[in-house]
Amino acid sequence: MVRQVTCTAPVNIAVIKYWGKRDTSLILPTNSSLSVTLSQDDLHSRTTVGIAPEWSNESDRMWLNGTESAIATNARLVNCLKMSRAQRKALEDADSGLPRWSQWGIRIVSENNFPTAAGLASSASGYACLVYTLAQVFELPLTGADLSRNARLGSGSACRSIFGGFVGWDMGQSPTGDDSQAYQVAPETHWPDLEALILVVSDLKKGVSSTAGMQTTVETSSLAQHRFQAIVPKRMRQMEQAILAKDFDTFAEITMRDSNQFHATCLDTFPPIFYLNDTSRLIIQVVTAINCLSGRTQAAYTFDAGPNAVIYAPKAHMPYLIQLFAYFFPGSAGSGYFSDSYQCLPEGTVLGKSFPEPFQVIQQTFPVLPVDSVRRIIHTRVGPGPMMRLEPEASLLNADGLPKTKSA
Amino acid sequence: MVRQVTCTAPVNIAVIKYWGKRDTSLILPTNSSLSVTLSQDDLHSRTTVGIAPEWSNESDRMWLNGTESAIATNARLVNCLKMSRAQRKALEDADSGLPRWSQWGIRIVSENNFPTAAGLASSASGYACLVYTLAQVFELPLTGADLSRNARLGSGSACRSIFGGFVGWDMGQSPTGDDSQAYQVAPETHWPDLEALILVVSDLKKGVSSTAGMQTTVETSSLAQHRFQAIVPKRMRQMEQAILAKDFDTFAEITMRDSNQFHATCLDTFPPIFYLNDTSRLIIQVVTAINCLSGRTQAAYTFDAGPNAVIYAPKAHMPYLIQLFAYFFPGSAGSGYFSDSYQCLPEGTVLGKSFPEPFQVIQQTFPVLPVDSVRRIIHTRVGPGPMMRLEPEASLLNADGLPKTKSA
Repeated sequence: MVRQVTCTAPVNIAVIKYWGKRDTSLILPTNSSLSVTLSQDDLHSRTTVGIAPEWSNESDRMWLNGTESAIATNARLVNCLKMSRAQRKALEDADSGLPRWSQWGIRIVSENNFPTAAGLASSASGYACLVYTLAQVFELPLTGADLSRNARLGSGSACRSIFGGFVGWDMGQSPTGDDSQAYQVAPETHWPDLEALILVVSDLKKGVSSTAGMQTTVETSSLAQHRFQAIVPKRMRQMEQAILAKDFDTFAEITMRDSNQFHATCLDTFPPIFYLNDTSRLIIQVVTAINCLSGRTQAAYTFDAGPNAVIYAPKAHMPYLIQLFAYFFPGSAGSGYFSDSYQCLPEGTVLGKSFPEPFQVIQQTFPVLPVDSVRRIIHTRVGPGPMMRLEPEASLLNADGLPKTKSA
Repeated sequence: MVRQVTCTAPVNIAVIKYWGKRDTSLILPTNSSLSVTLSQDDLHSRTTVGIAPEWSNESDRMWLNGTESAIATNARLVNCLKMSRAQRKALEDADSGLPRWSQWGIRIVSENNFPTAAGLASSASGYACLVYTLAQVFELPLTGADLSRNARLGSGSACRSIFGGFVGWDMGQSPTGDDSQAYQVAPETHWPDLEALILVVSDLKKGVSSTAGMQTTVETSSLAQHRFQAIVPKRMRQMEQAILAKDFDTFAEITMRDSNQFHATCLDTFPPIFYLNDTSRLIIQVVTAINCLSGRTQAAYTFDAGPNAVIYAPKAHMPYLIQLFAYFFPGSAGSGYFSDSYQCLPEGTVLGKSFPEPFQVIQQTFPVLPVDSVRRIIHTRVGPGPMMRLEPEASLLNADGLPKTKSA
């Protein structure tokens, strides 16, 4: 007697960056932020939550990407489960006719459709998917704002993956976090011309974890304090206006400036934190060059807490951009595993002559990078928020209440 | 009938960085700065200035590192010559008994004892040497502060090379620049225990020139504005106190934080400016690791507008530091051309086993860098300001009024 629901949830990539908490247990940020939700056709987390009365006497269990992982030692996960169960229990207390699902045991199976090796943060899509699926399985009458606060308890940026399209996270003012929640600036249908490329950059070095890194920034960087107070509030307003007006030039400039400023505050942290490497620098210089040379804003780069780039650009610029990056990073032009949407050139394509001379100068004057310094290019677009998956094969739980596939 | 004087002047490396002008023609900075003058035994510019009545009917001439270069097209050079001649002319106007040297033609020969390939900025030592030598040849009764204002017209940081030891540059308030001048915080004899290593880092890519880069920062970085107004004034006071107290821990921490913050404002510039590369990052991480592992501040790094590192450390830490950098950068352990002071290990020395395991972890987790990513290590110390060189062989002019040596 298992009740189960399966959902998927999207990745989001911030254009106004979140970096710093004013309350580390409630995950309340030092500044508001804004992101674009990416299509789940290319990148998503999938979660099945099953509840059953016969699991009530055992601990809740979870399998993540095929491996069982302890729940009890993960405080954030415990918080998400507690919150959802308490919300269910409140319903049951108010209506004695409801089944007592809050007393049943829980099993969670969650997977990402992109490998960890892709270097893409999965905590946002993962926690958004978890709280969304818990809300469905418990039939919680929650709004998007409510869900976003639940997701925030798991991972700050997860609150923005609760909505599709263009999503703000209002930092809020309350010490309880009741007003620190996400909101949709515009839906995914608002600006269909905007697309994204993800450049997956090789990096042997494991960077400082964002949880640890952002607190060191809050504690040691005086530039970050100035950013929180004097710069982000204005940028949030400008960015929302740019999105509503589909003004790519302004969107692009603020996106690039905010990415740079986030990494600047990492560098102003003591000891300093580096997420950009020489490959990231070259990507920035290529985008800067193409924007300068063509006399218009063709593309915008942004980097999270790692060397991978996300490039936002109008649909019409994508073929040229993909060719340009394939020229600079030939190792990226192999067969991608995102075969549905991966629109790259056949391996071995020679493009040099089709580019203006300055690009060749950039390549020649840059330190020689390993041939696989960009391992993969993913071409995707703006997408919707979490979705229930009703088809029976969507479930990750088998009839025995265990994960269907289990890898090491 | 040639009157000539030869002088040498030192390089200085800032610990509170100068980056930004509020007046680009008078070279008035957006913030005060502070530097350490390095020993001329290792690094210096040498300049001979000759004046002769028979050159009065020709243009002034200059040879820089063996090549004649036009004076008229170099506005800063013209300003320095004009200023010195005007100061001489004022003396002659006040005392008709003085020789009319201000009407004589000038020939300048200047050389650095370090190759351009070393990637070390030579404009500071070069302009300091020029204005100091001009003052000697014209017998100008100038104080150090006066000389520093003359040097500032050539290159901002040159004003700090007019003094030895530890040198501040007060940004001043006057629009004429009359109060924007250098002062000695402490002489070179004050803190003999403090020494320096210069790690010369290979970089194919020529960075943005500091003249162009700093103005883009002033125009586009809001973090830089905050730095100028709210951060540097306090750091200047703290740094002066640390130097006077010979408090290495405080000196080191402010030095590292200020270098990081300068590069953070470069990254916050739009489009962003990068001077640190992956090799620079590794040097920062090695210094951070050694300071953390040993539980004390062993060394401080600082980076100017390029990837080269300068490491300040107490004399006693130097042998270990040199071994550590030679371990990370084996290409640096060849025979240096600074044979007098270059204290490195013989080529091929294997040091791995003498270092704690975390250093090996750092090396293994970092991207593989070219073997010559640090090309050279120069070990030097704090030194005096410009000096006249009286020995006849010091002159760079031959009996014909031409450079003694002339290379392409």
